[in-house]
Amino acid sequence: MSGHLYGLGLGPGDPELITLKAWRILRAVPVVAYPAPDDGASFARSIVAPWLSPAQIEIAIRIPMEIARFPAQEVYDQAAVEIGAHLDAGRDVALLCQGDPLFYGSFMYLFGRLGERFRCEIVPGVSSLGACAAAAGFPLAARNDALAVLPAGLADDALARRLEACEAAAIIKLGRHFARIRALLTRLDLADKARYVERASLASERVLPLDAVALDEAPYFSMILLHRRGEAWK
Amino acid sequence: MSGHLYGLGLGPGDPELITLKAWRILRAVPVVAYPAPDDGASFARSIVAPWLSPAQIEIAIRIPMEIARFPAQEVYDQAAVEIGAHLDAGRDVALLCQGDPLFYGSFMYLFGRLGERFRCEIVPGVSSLGACAAAAGFPLAARNDALAVLPAGLADDALARRLEACEAAAIIKLGRHFARIRALLTRLDLADKARYVERASLASERVLPLDAVALDEAPYFSMILLHRRGEAWK
Repeated sequence: MSGHLYGLGLGPGDPELITLKAWRILRAVPVVAYPAPDDGASFARSIVAPWLSPAQIEIAIRIPMEIARFPAQEVYDQAAVEIGAHLDAGRDVALLCQGDPLFYGSFMYLFGRLGERFRCEIVPGVSSLGACAAAAGFPLAARNDALAVLPAGLADDALARRLEACEAAAIIKLGRHFARIRALLTRLDLADKARYVERASLASERVLPLDAVALDEAPYFSMILLHRRGEAWK
Repeated sequence: MSGHLYGLGLGPGDPELITLKAWRILRAVPVVAYPAPDDGASFARSIVAPWLSPAQIEIAIRIPMEIARFPAQEVYDQAAVEIGAHLDAGRDVALLCQGDPLFYGSFMYLFGRLGERFRCEIVPGVSSLGACAAAAGFPLAARNDALAVLPAGLADDALARRLEACEAAAIIKLGRHFARIRALLTRLDLADKARYVERASLASERVLPLDAVALDEAPYFSMILLHRRGEAWK
């Protein structure tokens, strides 16, 4: 009997925002795997570190920083071989995923490689979207609102066209794009209907109007929420 | 000292998909309030029923079915008065929300009425979006994909225009609109890149290709997920 592969959504960072189900599976599996930078600690692992046991085998999937935003094919190929060997040996493996496993997560690249060969269960988690909205007290959308999730890496004209086609939006993966996005939203007269949220649910969480953000570059864990009506319940 | 108002996201239905934080607060508060149909059981309450104590005061916010999709102003006005009285008396109140409180939830209507007068904490939950993706093993979006959440109540031309402006979409609140939406997606050549998901995370969960759905009318707890590339990781 081969092992089960679990994709565990761990939520946005506050350890208390993991689900009872992820918490149960996390402590039951003999092997945990997680994405990590080339050199340094894994954010996904840090969320649940207090609950890991020394008896558990850990696999760090080290994704070189310069290609972190692209599928690092060879890295995932190799991780799939290593994880597949544990599954073949009958050991269950949990892949730790910050946020929700299928919402812009790297989990899909391993799921694409292993999902057909092994029994796989995906445990959804609290996404950064819900966490940022909660931090800001900013309802995302109501009734017949179209809500768009837009990566900040899109070019200005593509973003503007997509913003036209929705009442509400979350602009994610801000990073080095922050200043450009703020200028675009100002030009589109949307800046005063937007809120900036950084590191939602962590102790370092911050919620700011766009013009109060001092940086040209935002951290990776940040997003802008906006609603054309200002507030979704209006 | 007035009480705290909590907006508790309870996730999509499986009781194990509530967060540790919601679970803790749920059992600690003296008053719980929840939306309920005119006549019958509250879905939000049913998720956590085994953990409620007879000592807790319960407030059912009964929303007449025929206006369930619109803000029922008088109902929320009256609920705000009732909940406000408990908060004024120093009793913490938890508002139970299926899914995530700020993702198309009715919680925002009470938050709009009480959020400024009382200390309020919102606990994000696993949304139907993440739950449906997990049930279907369907990654929502990757890299620079724009992901649109589109209510099925939108007219065909509005939907088509919004679908043009995204790589991936979740069409929610299907209900009586299902047959029309399926016809639209077929016309747009997107039907074979879509999956239908019903009652994600519940025992009655179903995942189907669109042409295998026998009904003209889908249940309220259903959505269609689609990705232009067929699969997000491609």
